[in-house]
Amino acid sequence: METTRAGRPRLTERRRPGTTARDEILDAAAELFTSRGYASTSTRAIAEAVGIRQASLYHYFKTKDELLSALLHQTVTPTLTFLSGLEQSGDPRSAAATLHALAAFDGAQLLTSQWNLGALYLLPELREARLATFWTERERLRQAYLDLSRAVLAATGITDDAADLPFRLVESLVNMWIPPPHPDPAALARHVADACLRVLGVTEDQLAALSASEPARAGHL
Amino acid sequence: METTRAGRPRLTERRRPGTTARDEILDAAAELFTSRGYASTSTRAIAEAVGIRQASLYHYFKTKDELLSALLHQTVTPTLTFLSGLEQSGDPRSAAATLHALAAFDGAQLLTSQWNLGALYLLPELREARLATFWTERERLRQAYLDLSRAVLAATGITDDAADLPFRLVESLVNMWIPPPHPDPAALARHVADACLRVLGVTEDQLAALSASEPARAGHL
Repeated sequence: METTRAGRPRLTERRRPGTTARDEILDAAAELFTSRGYASTSTRAIAEAVGIRQASLYHYFKTKDELLSALLHQTVTPTLTFLSGLEQSGDPRSAAATLHALAAFDGAQLLTSQWNLGALYLLPELREARLATFWTERERLRQAYLDLSRAVLAATGITDDAADLPFRLVESLVNMWIPPPHPDPAALARHVADACLRVLGVTEDQLAALSASEPARAGHL
Repeated sequence: METTRAGRPRLTERRRPGTTARDEILDAAAELFTSRGYASTSTRAIAEAVGIRQASLYHYFKTKDELLSALLHQTVTPTLTFLSGLEQSGDPRSAAATLHALAAFDGAQLLTSQWNLGALYLLPELREARLATFWTERERLRQAYLDLSRAVLAATGITDDAADLPFRLVESLVNMWIPPPHPDPAALARHVADACLRVLGVTEDQLAALSASEPARAGHL
């Protein structure tokens, strides 16, 4: 048995990628929720997977729901931060270019996540009111996609019914997730970003012009 | 208490949409799996929801897995049957037209299902070997989408990486499912079918020509 940092005794040595105990707990919870299922995973099993006592886990997360909520936030927070950065950059770009950048970033972060957290979105447990803050954030992200999509549709003349499809296309990457190492997530995410513009009626010529004007887009990832 | 058909005593009167006891059991299982979760639902709870004894349920389904397997098959079997019909109709149509018809049918049946069974696809429990026949069927459907998509891509010249996107777009309708009554699922499904062709680089002119040549497509639904 090994003692770490503040001398708190641990049942096993540190072995998860997290740099803090909180991160380690989140990583273990993500692995167990996505491999065994949410309902079938106990906080005791999570504590055991980290190698800490259940009481220590409760120091960081009071309930299993709190753990789930924190993990779900991880699936939207980076993209919302990226979007704020785009909006505040002062760099004037078309709605199409912004949507493309957003989808490429969002898609890549979904594909490169250590565990496929997006697979938890459809769990019945997620409809619980306790997860309301996650749903609010996710709805904010969806609304950003919708606003950009509608601006693109206004130019292409395609029916407004297509406005939700870019968000859904990126979301569908959850079904294409594979465990790390990922062969080339940025490339797949860019293809999906291209597809987001195509479903809105952006032509190949316009897409080519957009790619040519923003060659360093992949650098964001 | 009421007795039905072969005189088998029932705990409560028949109240589910199924026309046979087997259908009633499947309907109750679908409701409970999608509302409470698979792991949290017992065969006892399903039997109670139907108003039959647990022993009667086992007469139809030996295990909870068997119930899940039967429900999952319902999400792909109608579309595979529709696809066989298209292929055997002798009506020569382009890969684009076939893909459009397939996506519109598949999308509409996902949207109009009584319960959102597609939401169960990402359950960890589904990776179990016992559900192998479902995955084989679903992979057959995905392969049909892929073959058609590649034929369309060969004509449009878009990268082959886009070939999986039509299947994923239709699949994403699982996230747009709402409980019945559905306002206009056929229209939404056709928009998604249009989007399936757009992500493959089919132009608006080609799409318009395709729609004009097949005005009765919605009649399949």
